Amino acid sequence: MKAAILSIGDELTLGQTQDTNSRWLAGRLADRGVRCVEFRIVPDELSAQARALRALADAAEIVLVTGGLGPTDDDLTRDALREAIGDGAPLVLDQPSLAALDRWFKDRGRAMPEINKRQAMRPTTAECLTNDAGTAPGLRAKVGKAIVVCLPGPPREMEPMYARFVEPLLPRLEMSTGVVHSFGQGESFLAERLGDRMHRDRNPLVGTTASGSVVSARVRGTGAQASVQAIDQELAEIERIWRPYAFARGAVTLAGSLGQALQARGLTMALAESCTGGLAGSLVTAESGSSAWFRGGVMSYANEAKRDLCGVAQSTLDAHGAVSAPVALELARGACVALQADWAASITGVAGPGGGSDAKPVGSVFIGVVGPSFEAVRRFRYPGERAIVRDRAAKSALALLRLAIADRDHFTAPFIWEVKDHA
Amino acid sequence: MKAAILSIGDELTLGQTQDTNSRWLAGRLADRGVRCVEFRIVPDELSAQARALRALADAAEIVLVTGGLGPTDDDLTRDALREAIGDGAPLVLDQPSLAALDRWFKDRGRAMPEINKRQAMRPTTAECLTNDAGTAPGLRAKVGKAIVVCLPGPPREMEPMYARFVEPLLPRLEMSTGVVHSFGQGESFLAERLGDRMHRDRNPLVGTTASGSVVSARVRGTGAQASVQAIDQELAEIERIWRPYAFARGAVTLAGSLGQALQARGLTMALAESCTGGLAGSLVTAESGSSAWFRGGVMSYANEAKRDLCGVAQSTLDAHGAVSAPVALELARGACVALQADWAASITGVAGPGGGSDAKPVGSVFIGVVGPSFEAVRRFRYPGERAIVRDRAAKSALALLRLAIADRDHFTAPFIWEVKDHA
Repeated sequence: MKAAILSIGDELTLGQTQDTNSRWLAGRLADRGVRCVEFRIVPDELSAQARALRALADAAEIVLVTGGLGPTDDDLTRDALREAIGDGAPLVLDQPSLAALDRWFKDRGRAMPEINKRQAMRPTTAECLTNDAGTAPGLRAKVGKAIVVCLPGPPREMEPMYARFVEPLLPRLEMSTGVVHSFGQGESFLAERLGDRMHRDRNPLVGTTASGSVVSARVRGTGAQASVQAIDQELAEIERIWRPYAFARGAVTLAGSLGQALQARGLTMALAESCTGGLAGSLVTAESGSSAWFRGGVMSYANEAKRDLCGVAQSTLDAHGAVSAPVALELARGACVALQADWAASITGVAGPGGGSDAKPVGSVFIGVVGPSFEAVRRFRYPGERAIVRDRAAKSALALLRLAIADRDHFTAPFIWEVKDHA
Repeated sequence: MKAAILSIGDELTLGQTQDTNSRWLAGRLADRGVRCVEFRIVPDELSAQARALRALADAAEIVLVTGGLGPTDDDLTRDALREAIGDGAPLVLDQPSLAALDRWFKDRGRAMPEINKRQAMRPTTAECLTNDAGTAPGLRAKVGKAIVVCLPGPPREMEPMYARFVEPLLPRLEMSTGVVHSFGQGESFLAERLGDRMHRDRNPLVGTTASGSVVSARVRGTGAQASVQAIDQELAEIERIWRPYAFARGAVTLAGSLGQALQARGLTMALAESCTGGLAGSLVTAESGSSAWFRGGVMSYANEAKRDLCGVAQSTLDAHGAVSAPVALELARGACVALQADWAASITGVAGPGGGSDAKPVGSVFIGVVGPSFEAVRRFRYPGERAIVRDRAAKSALALLRLAIADRDHFTAPFIWEVKDHA
């Protein structure tokens, strides 16, 4: 089955609002083995909408439409659907929808504004779809040979309606997908390691994407390769090839995989962050349930914070400077003690744009990792602007901590930003 | 002038990656008075791309394409452009692009992989566009009467190339723009306060957008209202109307405006973060030069961290629980002392999804603000999922700290998520 997605709204084509519905819907469709042949986004214009509806109904067997079902003059999806159906019949008032609208307002202690009556109108051959989270009912109709399902734009309303009205229309799964995430190497290095696996006509199909320095391999199997086992085997093979950079599958983040490694062993961690000032901590605490394994940390921005809260010796600061391997090590040791944690990672560096020197140019970062019978410092030089340096430094700290705990034999595998010389 | 935007990539139509380029481009085009008639997104398929290119070239005078310029087999934009041009000529090797590619790899101490040679290929009638931030040159060509400009997909590469190669193609427009940012109230409340200013045919035109709970008013003046003074006067009026929620203009963030307030007074700050675990600190330290006014902070996740590092009394924790007004106050006091800062904000709450109770449901957050002759605690209840609760809590702390320092008379103005009852 082929699908197409149409999003409607001036706010989208003016660039004021980010359309996220298309991506959400395509992801769900892909999970069910339905391939999207196209997304389109058009403004609140009747003819543009009707034209897009007809074109997509020609190209796909199911067309999902979001937006344009509100009560105001610029909400034209009902009319566009009528025009695309092309039977010349006018919109009719759907009595059950009108009653539901009336109830919706009554439940909120208000009378239904006259303007909302529009929302109960439908093409004669269309069916109205109940919306429990808002006033806009959806619509389902045939345009040519395709089924068109129109859903309201707000994700809070659209998503439950998708589950209720679209999923039952989809075929049984004929495709499966999976994903492996990695950190520490560049996309071209990792793609090269995958070799022939990335051929476009291979099944399962493997593709790589990079986002926020996390490189992911996406696997899609169809037909005989659509089984959970086939995908699982492919993912396992990619994890083996990408070791030790691969850290998780599916929706698991770097911080989440670190948490799993800690929790499986009944261990806890802490952080001492200088140049990242809380960024690694915010990644860690973005994980729900992280209180089970994260004790806390110190944003050791000022030197006094490094000294007073993390126990870095003033003499170490004086002798080596705040951005140095000895300070990174003492910070991580100190964080373990101050937060009563089993493991700690520390980050100290020059995020830029100012503060660089010949010996320690912008992007120079030392990361310390300390745990039971384990101490290490790594030096990196991250290219790019402040935000990128900080993001990569925070993620490197989490990745190294995870390696030290879960794959210690490979802890020394170099990251792409590695600086060999510690001096 | 009418524009259309085409984004290319399986990762987009499979719902694995969110296309943000279309929105970004449409916003920039709108700023220059160019209207987008349509966005399309198609997979890495030659015929689908060529078909979309031809259709959009029929509908618009300029077509912007992103993606599909990489070195691998599934990067087909060059071939699709050739097919859409339809002159039957094969791709040719562009010598200057090949030389640039070669240099790009040499500068990084590597030899150019054979595979990257593809990226120097172009249709005979197309021109290659230099990419300073990556290996993929762009392409510019005529398809029918339309100009088609193909840019690489990564925003870091695409955005500077847009400025360099697309903006000169747009019509001149006597126009100035400006923006005021606010935090603490909802978009509808703030838009209502702007009243008639938001009329679509007003000049200067005022529109509101919301992103990450920051509500911004964007001002665009044309013709007689395009002067710097006219825009400045309009921005000042909006700041007056939105007081005390308006915090900055232009590219200044909430953390940046807080930093300005501190630095102007020679003051410093610290943070104690429980449920946000470093998120506020990461916003603060995202500002370059923040070391002048940010001393550091504590991610006081475990109760022991609140006690040992921020001096919260065990008896206070026992009597009121970690999520309480008294603990918020002691955390902020303790952060001031531990970090030797003039001001501190603290955050303690239930970010969810677990951990809520009847008395303190998910989203309940206490924020403490302490400074010279100033102590206050505010209670909020943020709706939404964990990430949203944390984001709003971190930003609320920074906004309150800024008000206490820079606009104390208005410190008590309620935020939209305010809970009056502190019990």
